[in-house]
Amino acid sequence: MDVVASPSRASPALPRRPDRHVAAGEDALTALVALLPDDLAACNRTIVARMASPVELIPQLAAHIVAAGGKRLRPLLTLATARLCGYAGERHVKLAACVEFIHTATLLHDDVVDASLLRRGMASANAVFGNQAPVLVGDFLFARAFQLMVEDGSLIVLGILSQAAATIAEGEVLQLVTQNDLSTPEARYLEVIKGKTAALFAAACEVGAVVADRPRGETSALADFGMNLGIAFQLVDDALDYAADQSVLGKTIGDDFREGKVTLPVLLAFQAGDAADREFWRRTIEATEQNEADLDRALHLMQHCGAIRATLDRALGFAVAAKDSLAPFPDSAMRRALVDVADYTVSRAR
Amino acid sequence: MDVVASPSRASPALPRRPDRHVAAGEDALTALVALLPDDLAACNRTIVARMASPVELIPQLAAHIVAAGGKRLRPLLTLATARLCGYAGERHVKLAACVEFIHTATLLHDDVVDASLLRRGMASANAVFGNQAPVLVGDFLFARAFQLMVEDGSLIVLGILSQAAATIAEGEVLQLVTQNDLSTPEARYLEVIKGKTAALFAAACEVGAVVADRPRGETSALADFGMNLGIAFQLVDDALDYAADQSVLGKTIGDDFREGKVTLPVLLAFQAGDAADREFWRRTIEATEQNEADLDRALHLMQHCGAIRATLDRALGFAVAAKDSLAPFPDSAMRRALVDVADYTVSRAR
Repeated sequence: MDVVASPSRASPALPRRPDRHVAAGEDALTALVALLPDDLAACNRTIVARMASPVELIPQLAAHIVAAGGKRLRPLLTLATARLCGYAGERHVKLAACVEFIHTATLLHDDVVDASLLRRGMASANAVFGNQAPVLVGDFLFARAFQLMVEDGSLIVLGILSQAAATIAEGEVLQLVTQNDLSTPEARYLEVIKGKTAALFAAACEVGAVVADRPRGETSALADFGMNLGIAFQLVDDALDYAADQSVLGKTIGDDFREGKVTLPVLLAFQAGDAADREFWRRTIEATEQNEADLDRALHLMQHCGAIRATLDRALGFAVAAKDSLAPFPDSAMRRALVDVADYTVSRAR
Repeated sequence: MDVVASPSRASPALPRRPDRHVAAGEDALTALVALLPDDLAACNRTIVARMASPVELIPQLAAHIVAAGGKRLRPLLTLATARLCGYAGERHVKLAACVEFIHTATLLHDDVVDASLLRRGMASANAVFGNQAPVLVGDFLFARAFQLMVEDGSLIVLGILSQAAATIAEGEVLQLVTQNDLSTPEARYLEVIKGKTAALFAAACEVGAVVADRPRGETSALADFGMNLGIAFQLVDDALDYAADQSVLGKTIGDDFREGKVTLPVLLAFQAGDAADREFWRRTIEATEQNEADLDRALHLMQHCGAIRATLDRALGFAVAAKDSLAPFPDSAMRRALVDVADYTVSRAR
C-alpha cells in the first residue's frame, strides 16, 4: 500500500531547490555520523556509563531502549552543531548524552501513556516490564540528565534543557487534551508537536552553539534550525503512521488511529470529508469505536483527499525553513551534512 | 482495632529522653508553621504561581494534589533549616517550592505505579484523571522544579536536588524489585526507604544550610537530620499501613498488604512466624493470593509477634538520631521546633 506521494514533486507551493546533497533514505544520517565518529562513540560510552546504577533493573531496562537502536538523532544534533560552531572541546559529548537521556525518559513515559506495544520495531519497555518500572526508570534518566548538566556547570545549558523538558511535558499534556477532538485547529496541533518533539530538537541544537560560546544570533539560528527540523520530523512521523511499512518504520501502522490521536492527516481528511466521511471520523477518532475494516477506510479517505501528501508538503516547508536557519554559518562539510539531515527527515517518507 | 503500642513506653533498647517539647499529634508541625508564617505563605504563593501553564489541565491536576492538603513537611524543612542557620534572604522560598514540586511529581508517579485510589484521604489523581495525565504532569512539575533552581542560580543546590531525584527513582525501582520478596534483608528495606523517602528529606534540609552559606559541618549535620527524620517518617508510615484508622491517616489500611509490598512489619512478622505463618505470608505477599479474611489475620500475626511495635521502635531510634544531628546548632525556638517535629514523626503513630 503506497499512499505517500513524493512531496518534492507534489508540492506546488514550495520552490524546488536543487540540492546536490539530498540523501536517499538514511544516508544523510550516516554521512553526519561519519563526520563525528569519535564524538558519537564517546557519547555512546557516556550514555552506557552514566545509566549505571546499583539497582540493576535500571541499566537493564535502559539498555532495552538503547539496544532498540535509536538513530541518536538528537544527541547527534548537539555534537554536530557544536562542531559546526568550531567548538574544539569535549563538553558537548556529556551534554549530548543528557539530550538522549531526556529523550529516552520521554519515550519510556510516552509508551506508558500510549500503552504502546512496539517501540522501534521491538517490544516496548512497558510491554516487557509492565508500566511500573518504565515510569520510574524514566524519572531516573531525567534526574541523571540534570546531574550530568550540573557536572558540566553551565546554568545557561541547564536553563535551556529544563525549559525544554517543561515544554515537552506541556506538549504531551496538550496532546492528551486534544486526543479525540476533531475540532482541534491546525495551529493547536502545531503547538502539540512543537512541544512534544521540536522543543528538544531546538534545545539540542542551541546547546551546541552555547558550549561553543557563540553569540546570540548563532544560538538562536541553531534553535530555529532544530525547531523547524523537529516539526518537519514529527509531521512526517504522523504521515508515516498512515503510510509506512511496519518493518521499515519500526512502529505499528495505524497506532495513532487506534488511539484516536488527532494528527494532521486526520484533521485534513476530516475537514475535506463529506457528511458520511465526517461521521466515520467522529465514530473512529472521537468515540474510538472501530472495527477491522476501519483502518483501511481511513487510509482510503486520506489517499482520496490528499491528506498524507498535504502533511508531507507542510513537512517540506519546515525542512526548507530549517535549512534557511543555517544562513549565518559559512559553507562546511558539517553545514552540508545538516542540510542533508533536513532533507532526510522528509525523504524518509518517499 | 489498635495494634500500635506506644513506642516510648515499649522500647527498652532506647533511652527515655525527657523532652519538654514533645508535641501531641500535629501540634509540632503547627508550632513549626507558627515560626514561619510569612515564609510558608510565600512558598504557597510560589507553588500556585509556578505550576501555572497555558495547558489548563496541568494546574488543574496539580491543584488536585495541592488541594488534598499535604502537610508541606518537606518545604517546611527547607524554610526552617534556612532560618535555623540565620539566613535572612528569600531564596529559600523558591527552593522550598522546588522541593514540594519534586515531592508532588513523585506522588503522582507513585500513585500510577501503585495504582492507588486514595491519596491523603481523597481520590488520587490517577483515580480521577486516569494514568496518562499524572505521568505527564509529574514530568512537568519535575522540569519546573529544575527551572526554579536555575533561576536561583546555585549549582550546589542543583547538584543536591538532582542527586536526590536520582536517588528517589533508584529507591522506587528497588522497592519494585523487592516488592514480593520475603527474603529481602532488613538492610535492603532500609535502602529502599532511604531512597524513596529520606533522600528528599535530607536534600530539603541540606539546601536550607546551603542558601545560608554555612560550612560543611552544618550542611552535613542538616542532611543527616533530614535523612534520619525521613527514615523514621517512612518506618512509621509503613507501621500505620497495618494499624491506622483510615480517616486519620488518609490512606486505605492494608494498601501495602494488598500490593504485596515488603515493608518492615511484614519482614519481621515473616521472620518471627512458624511454618504455617510463613506459608500464609508467602501466599499473601509473594503470590498475592488473598481473600477477605487475610488482612485481619495479617494484623493479628503482627500484633502477636510485636512487629508493629518493633517497627516503631526502629523509628524512634532514627528520630533520636535526627535530634542528635542538630547538636552543632545552639538552642533556639527553631531548633526546638525541629526537635519536636522529630518527636512528632513517631508520636503520630500513638
